[in-house]
Amino acid sequence: LSATPAASIAAAAGSPFVRACRRQTVPHTPVWFMRQAGRSLPEYRSLRGDGSILAAIADPAVAAEATVQPVRRYGVDAAILFSDIVVPVHAVGFGVDVVPGQGPVVERPFRSASDLTRLRPLEPAVDSPYVAEAVRLAVAELAPSKVPLIGFAGAPFTVASYLVEGGPSRTFARVKSLMHAEPGLWTALLDRLASMAVAFLTAQVEAGAAAVQLFDSWAGWLAPYEYEQWVLPATRQVLERVASLGVPTILFGVGTGELLGLMGGAGADVVGVDWRVPLDQARRRGGGGRAVQGNLDPALCVGPWPVTEAAARRVLEEAGTEPGHVFNLGHGVLPETDPGILAELVALVHAEGRAGVTEGGRTAVAG
Amino acid sequence: LSATPAASIAAAAGSPFVRACRRQTVPHTPVWFMRQAGRSLPEYRSLRGDGSILAAIADPAVAAEATVQPVRRYGVDAAILFSDIVVPVHAVGFGVDVVPGQGPVVERPFRSASDLTRLRPLEPAVDSPYVAEAVRLAVAELAPSKVPLIGFAGAPFTVASYLVEGGPSRTFARVKSLMHAEPGLWTALLDRLASMAVAFLTAQVEAGAAAVQLFDSWAGWLAPYEYEQWVLPATRQVLERVASLGVPTILFGVGTGELLGLMGGAGADVVGVDWRVPLDQARRRGGGGRAVQGNLDPALCVGPWPVTEAAARRVLEEAGTEPGHVFNLGHGVLPETDPGILAELVALVHAEGRAGVTEGGRTAVAG
Repeated sequence: LSATPAASIAAAAGSPFVRACRRQTVPHTPVWFMRQAGRSLPEYRSLRGDGSILAAIADPAVAAEATVQPVRRYGVDAAILFSDIVVPVHAVGFGVDVVPGQGPVVERPFRSASDLTRLRPLEPAVDSPYVAEAVRLAVAELAPSKVPLIGFAGAPFTVASYLVEGGPSRTFARVKSLMHAEPGLWTALLDRLASMAVAFLTAQVEAGAAAVQLFDSWAGWLAPYEYEQWVLPATRQVLERVASLGVPTILFGVGTGELLGLMGGAGADVVGVDWRVPLDQARRRGGGGRAVQGNLDPALCVGPWPVTEAAARRVLEEAGTEPGHVFNLGHGVLPETDPGILAELVALVHAEGRAGVTEGGRTAVAG
Repeated sequence: LSATPAASIAAAAGSPFVRACRRQTVPHTPVWFMRQAGRSLPEYRSLRGDGSILAAIADPAVAAEATVQPVRRYGVDAAILFSDIVVPVHAVGFGVDVVPGQGPVVERPFRSASDLTRLRPLEPAVDSPYVAEAVRLAVAELAPSKVPLIGFAGAPFTVASYLVEGGPSRTFARVKSLMHAEPGLWTALLDRLASMAVAFLTAQVEAGAAAVQLFDSWAGWLAPYEYEQWVLPATRQVLERVASLGVPTILFGVGTGELLGLMGGAGADVVGVDWRVPLDQARRRGGGGRAVQGNLDPALCVGPWPVTEAAARRVLEEAGTEPGHVFNLGHGVLPETDPGILAELVALVHAEGRAGVTEGGRTAVAG
């Protein structure tokens, strides 16, 4: 653990991933995959076994190893910390478990103002020291390859949706009802979750994460006016406070076509989009000054390879030549994905990506 | 059963619902709810009990009663046949069941060209005579109130998604993989499903249905190019052939913001949209010449009433004053919905809707 966190971040500034986030020229289009550390990898399955995911996250050696595995396997341009968006609320004792095949399940869902007391501020060094430790271990492991580590947190709305619904939902009826019927309580809840996200992300950056992604995975289930009124302010608060840490920020959600203008103004350097919106349109809708991340449909990565290849070439085409494209999937890697296909995909993106790719960089890579 | 089907259809032409579908002036904004016949109604639960939904659909007296119940309860402007999108494939013996709390489950999913033989053409009079009989019974029951009956079918893609995935899916990986990897087989599958939908809808119209809705519920999980290339042609085929029957057609899907331009050109008179796209934008994107149906979020109908009311007023505002708005939810009624709220909602829409509402009509209603 020789390098200081500040040194890791400084070193990462020259990486294709961080440069693309900042819409600078790159030697090749950087690529990583949401859920690249996961069940699609045999080495991950053998590392994890059948144990609880929250227990694995709380073991820094295991979490760091899961974080680094996909870099070794695929040669991706960024690692993402092996963790979960419910870690902070779990860490302050809200009573959340992650059930295999189901997702986060909350013992006593958030229902009224009295539940706010169950969401005390997160003190990362005390409540979840294993997270910073996993970051430090992973960053040390990644240092020789100069691959940056992305830290992450759940955005206030998406975390709130689990707390209020009590688990995964297809309708979000309870959380929407709370938002509309008790806007004061809703704002108080989101404020607490925003502060927890800031603390959680800050701890990761201080431990060496060179970028952060805020997952607002379910924001796309909201109407634009709901997002603008009841979700955007807390999201912006997180992004603005994290921006002062000096690392690029990414804001991601699924089904967010109608929200891209608002999300583009939330303060992130990069807006992540799913496969529904072609990247050229996403760039326009996200407003000027933002890079885009995405957006290959993970359903097209289960094979056969020619299907993946054709769809990936379309994504690269739509990304264009302007700087500011981080190649990714439109959502997480599906467990049934063949790792061989993702490895081929990384090679294709490196060879064929054009967004902000300099001729010199191209020549240097080719040579 | 005195009126002939042609007479029912002619009578329905003057109804606010059919007039709004055709973008004609109306005395009040018509309203109905997807899944208005369903578990949110106590009388439905007592009618259905715990039996199989496919058995209930196959009993014309039960199906007709379930169809008419919401008209009695809510005073909605249209009934929709109590049926299911898998009825045609079930009726030709593909081996589909509808499992409570889960949805359609397919015994042997569609995997290869040999499965095409399991999808022989539907002969409604032989394979599913109970459907036309239920339509006739419901239409006779509705005749005194002059409330039209909507027939429906699943659109080829959405039905195919169940056949290929084997049940409900969150990723549609198998069906997308088939579409991309075996476009010839995919087209053959969609052609068969299109023909079945046409036969199924024709039988309903010939029995007295005064409009039809094509449910392409999961089309919004596709990228626009996939929809245009592999889904739109079969959808258009169904809508064009049904248009010749002389009743208005509605095309509905969830999460279709990126597809509205394409869906608007598919040949339906009305494009249904969910709550993600404000109706004023939906009208523009659907192109000229189409009415819109929607789009209150069903999650906002679980109460309390002021939440539903405010959201419904917003929908009416966004619908504007131009003719061609059928008020509906953005997706089906949730089972936990309080029927009292839907009854209040109907009254609100009738009193406050403005799209194509004539002053004479308004005065007549108010008087």
